[in-house]
Amino acid sequence: MRYALEDLTGYAADLLAVAGLDREKAATVSRLLVSADAMGHTTHGLALLAGYLDEIASGAMKVTGEPVVIADRGAAVVWDGERLPGVWLAAKAVDLAAERAGRHGLCAIAIRRSHHIACLAALLPAATQRGLMIIVASSDPSAAMVAPFGGRGAVFTPDPIAVGIPTGGDPILIDMSASITTAGMSARLRGEGRRYPGAWAIGPDGRATDDPGVLAAEPPGALLPAGGLDHGQKGYGLALMVEALTQGLSGYGRADGEREWGASVFVQVFDPELFGGRAALEWQAGHLADLCRASTPIDLARPVRLPGAGALAGLRAAALEGVAPHPGILDGLAKYAARYGVAGPAPMLREPR
Amino acid sequence: MRYALEDLTGYAADLLAVAGLDREKAATVSRLLVSADAMGHTTHGLALLAGYLDEIASGAMKVTGEPVVIADRGAAVVWDGERLPGVWLAAKAVDLAAERAGRHGLCAIAIRRSHHIACLAALLPAATQRGLMIIVASSDPSAAMVAPFGGRGAVFTPDPIAVGIPTGGDPILIDMSASITTAGMSARLRGEGRRYPGAWAIGPDGRATDDPGVLAAEPPGALLPAGGLDHGQKGYGLALMVEALTQGLSGYGRADGEREWGASVFVQVFDPELFGGRAALEWQAGHLADLCRASTPIDLARPVRLPGAGALAGLRAAALEGVAPHPGILDGLAKYAARYGVAGPAPMLREPR
Repeated sequence: MRYALEDLTGYAADLLAVAGLDREKAATVSRLLVSADAMGHTTHGLALLAGYLDEIASGAMKVTGEPVVIADRGAAVVWDGERLPGVWLAAKAVDLAAERAGRHGLCAIAIRRSHHIACLAALLPAATQRGLMIIVASSDPSAAMVAPFGGRGAVFTPDPIAVGIPTGGDPILIDMSASITTAGMSARLRGEGRRYPGAWAIGPDGRATDDPGVLAAEPPGALLPAGGLDHGQKGYGLALMVEALTQGLSGYGRADGEREWGASVFVQVFDPELFGGRAALEWQAGHLADLCRASTPIDLARPVRLPGAGALAGLRAAALEGVAPHPGILDGLAKYAARYGVAGPAPMLREPR
Repeated sequence: MRYALEDLTGYAADLLAVAGLDREKAATVSRLLVSADAMGHTTHGLALLAGYLDEIASGAMKVTGEPVVIADRGAAVVWDGERLPGVWLAAKAVDLAAERAGRHGLCAIAIRRSHHIACLAALLPAATQRGLMIIVASSDPSAAMVAPFGGRGAVFTPDPIAVGIPTGGDPILIDMSASITTAGMSARLRGEGRRYPGAWAIGPDGRATDDPGVLAAEPPGALLPAGGLDHGQKGYGLALMVEALTQGLSGYGRADGEREWGASVFVQVFDPELFGGRAALEWQAGHLADLCRASTPIDLARPVRLPGAGALAGLRAAALEGVAPHPGILDGLAKYAARYGVAGPAPMLREPR
């Protein structure tokens, strides 16, 4: 079943708004969640909406107001997000950082006490479309499911970092976690009785495993950092970097003993025009992208792709053909639709357009 | 054979200075090369000195002058390094970025046409000692030995990124390449007839291999990105990020067809005092470091360590006990010492101090 983008977005926005979220915030959150689904990040799109609605109902997600400015030095900004919706806060930070980068060359915004920010990749096009380079990172101080290199006890969240790079043509959209896989993917595989394609987790016995069940076992295992048992110092380094950028610069993190689902967030935008020039950056990045696409593939039938190529194709297809949410997601929202009296979206007709 | 830090540094500085490099530049380059050896980064310390001396002799490394300022927006700076010694340029960029970060909260400096910058980790303490957080990245537009994920044809250099994070106690000093291993380590293993401990390269046949010889074969293989065949999208993303930060922001890179050994460089310093506070960052990072050290190790005899712990221990030991350069390095410098009439360093006496 496929649904028109605007119908899914409107449905999600209605649910959030009737639940109590400011209309403007609901519009941004729903737009970016549906965008994540269209980009193929189906664990970080509408799959999160039920959880967000629960957080609104319990009062754990704030529904109105603005972030509090803790520091503002022009190019360096810190907000207290006060548990406002992270997707909306992050999008707002991207906008402000983009504007400030146009004045200072770059701008970094650290946000403490944000709620969850969902799919980082969905935030990138707002910058790359303006010819800006962007980095977004996030961590959740209340949770730990990723082990440091050499350890079997969890310390970190998957600690994603995303980078958007304009090329003149399609931007490069990187979105990767410091762990081999994510918590969302692990929960999905566990729910579907499936396994990881590799030994991506470690059990409490210290052995690497392809069983996502170890995360929910007692005692629990942990996700392995990128590089795994062989060279997990890479993912370990990335996780430390992301937690320092997000929790260190915002001044709010694990040391505060946070127990509630949320995020510390880092957003940085560069305006290449104030560095070596926008045309120069696009020329370099475009050339680099060409070199990657021209690299002889390992499997000759599968050309090398740039990060984000699939997501951009998904966005384009979704605009024409709509989106088919991952199985179970709309079913999971039905009880909220009933509770709030919101009509579900109508599937698209099958005729070719 | 161990040598006193100041004797090794003086020897290297004399060689560079007699070869023609400005005394002040020679002092900085030699100090940081020896520091790299003390930190255990023995492929990126004095092992590079012979190559640098060759580049001075051929005129490929500029021996005097200052970088040209291409852009200066306060917090965003671009230099043309004009092929001056990269170690000196990078150290100078760290100093300027640290000073500017104290005014703006952060400062990023991109350098085009730098010469090689050696060991990134050696550059970090100058910032962390001042309570600043620092990121350094480097790439060489003239070379390619790392494949993109899914490819067997090289596109990138190992594209290191290093991050220094103050904790109040020992700083966290991350220094990692986007590839599983480095070009320097590959050349050393090849020269010593050894193999990688894992399948860290890919042959021209598209098969992963532990043979560092494939890099020098014809047709050549390539280093695999971090994550390897299993999840090499991590190293691929890191490499793209590093090349965009270094070549994209500096406006000089692969698209220019550079053929000479050198670097595009990115240095960014954050002053946490102008974000959420220095004490807050150190509290968060120190707590995170404690959590890592407390993670149950996979091998109960090998506690989890923080990145940089070994390097800091090496620096402390070197100050007391001197440094033992990797076998062959001082022998390789003997011909330069003879050519330039510089006396070699005397080994330290064996008595305990």
